[in-house]
Amino acid sequence: MAAPEYIHETELKVRDYECDMQGIVNNANYQHYMEHARHEFLLSTGIGFTDLRARGIECVVRRVEIEYRVSLRSKDVAVCRLYLRREGPKFVFYQDIYRKADGKLCARGRIESVATVDGRATRGDELTEFFGKYLS
Amino acid sequence: MAAPEYIHETELKVRDYECDMQGIVNNANYQHYMEHARHEFLLSTGIGFTDLRARGIECVVRRVEIEYRVSLRSKDVAVCRLYLRREGPKFVFYQDIYRKADGKLCARGRIESVATVDGRATRGDELTEFFGKYLS
Amino acid sequence: MAAPEYIHETELKVRDYECDMQGIVNNANYQHYMEHARHEFLLSTGIGFTDLRARGIECVVRRVEIEYRVSLRSKDVAVCRLYLRREGPKFVFYQDIYRKADGKLCARGRIESVATVDGRATRGDELTEFFGKYLS
Amino acid sequence: MAAPEYIHETELKVRDYECDMQGIVNNANYQHYMEHARHEFLLSTGIGFTDLRARGIECVVRRVEIEYRVSLRSKDVAVCRLYLRREGPKFVFYQDIYRKADGKLCARGRIESVATVDGRATRGDELTEFFGKYLS
Repeated sequence: MAAPEYIHETELKVRDYECDMQGIVNNANYQHYMEHARHEFLLSTGIGFTDLRARGIECVVRRVEIEYRVSLRSKDVAVCRLYLRREGPKFVFYQDIYRKADGKLCARGRIESVATVDGRATRGDELTEFFGKYLS
Repeated sequence: MAAPEYIHETELKVRDYECDMQGIVNNANYQHYMEHARHEFLLSTGIGFTDLRARGIECVVRRVEIEYRVSLRSKDVAVCRLYLRREGPKFVFYQDIYRKADGKLCARGRIESVATVDGRATRGDELTEFFGKYLS
Repeated sequence: MAAPEYIHETELKVRDYECDMQGIVNNANYQHYMEHARHEFLLSTGIGFTDLRARGIECVVRRVEIEYRVSLRSKDVAVCRLYLRREGPKFVFYQDIYRKADGKLCARGRIESVATVDGRATRGDELTEFFGKYLS
Repeated sequence: MAAPEYIHETELKVRDYECDMQGIVNNANYQHYMEHARHEFLLSTGIGFTDLRARGIECVVRRVEIEYRVSLRSKDVAVCRLYLRREGPKFVFYQDIYRKADGKLCARGRIESVATVDGRATRGDELTEFFGKYLS
């Protein structure tokens, strides 16, 4: 099976307050970067995270896996690339973060999310209107 | 005029992710500490920030002044003490942060807040039910 | 094989600024909670994260897996319990977060870390001095 | 005296994790935005915050004043504009944050900083090499 292709990319410049006393971006901030990248992707499909909420649809993360390879530092620009797969009711985001200057892969993420309506997980069909054509 | 007395105190242990590459708690986190201390104070009066929201009352910060004196570091415990004054529609929190180990004053804050209902600032009377006896 | 027993626990009260617009603790903050809990565990063994750094030993996270089950909210107290296994050069922290009020399991984490000296991963023997008796 | 002119500007898109349960950017994050904007300004003068640190010069914030006017929300783009004055040993940053879409002034900041060498405040001459021509 050929490797899926990235369908969206977000650039984020490291902010110094995101770095911890080791002088590197704190691990939890990669999760923040990935959340922001997902929401930017969502916006690019024509709807925002807050718009979904206004329709009563909450996107909820069920599972996060992040592998850390190379540390981002002050002045670095991160490029967050993603693609998306549907696995039953789950929308799984594969999100890789690269260092822009040299293209090094810094972190790989796999984020499972579901849509909930009234607090209950749905089969996900609410989101295919937006995500359908992006599913790989 | 005698100095007002603190009416509430919250202890917070420094978390390493709150420290930046200088090895000290990042300045913005003192504002987070102070917010948490205000909300803890609020809870101690018998109502939470979320309870006020459920009644349609939003507490909104209008102005923050923080003077930084001594930096908090890994392993430090911060003690956030506060007192409160009403100035017309404003509730002004005076919040000082001490280092527990030696009692050093680390930061002094003055935070002006107002209550809003339906997005409009009120005269503040909604909050005196809770804060009334604490006003100095 | 019997389930391992937790060897350390840290209580953390939810701070309202940790909650996002969904009114629940933002996912990335669970990773912050877990980092703080690991560092508290480290302190309980007699050495701090900053003390290790002063000896030239950096603890670095290689992989994070977090499963989200129940959302923490304003006023909740989280109890972070952990145990630890060595897998070759890796120290793997199993970290579960419970809601104190009713004992509900909110999140399960598995965090792989290694020790580095001069930027190179070690076989981990530097840390067994501290962790040895806690390994399950 | 004519109003000083802004000498630098940084654009920041609101990230949803920066919004709190009120659905607006949490107050402390404006301080983060301002810190990032100062560091971007610093970089534009030819030196980074980390470069100064490598030379033994630490920039330390002594006092922060922020007035909050209009709340930033999801999808907003913030434009952080600043100018700079020297007051004796202090470098005072005047930092205003606008909402890009309609130019509304959202927050006004005044941040006093000093340079320290070996932990002691200096007269600030180390920084005039970089800031000199920008002082108003």
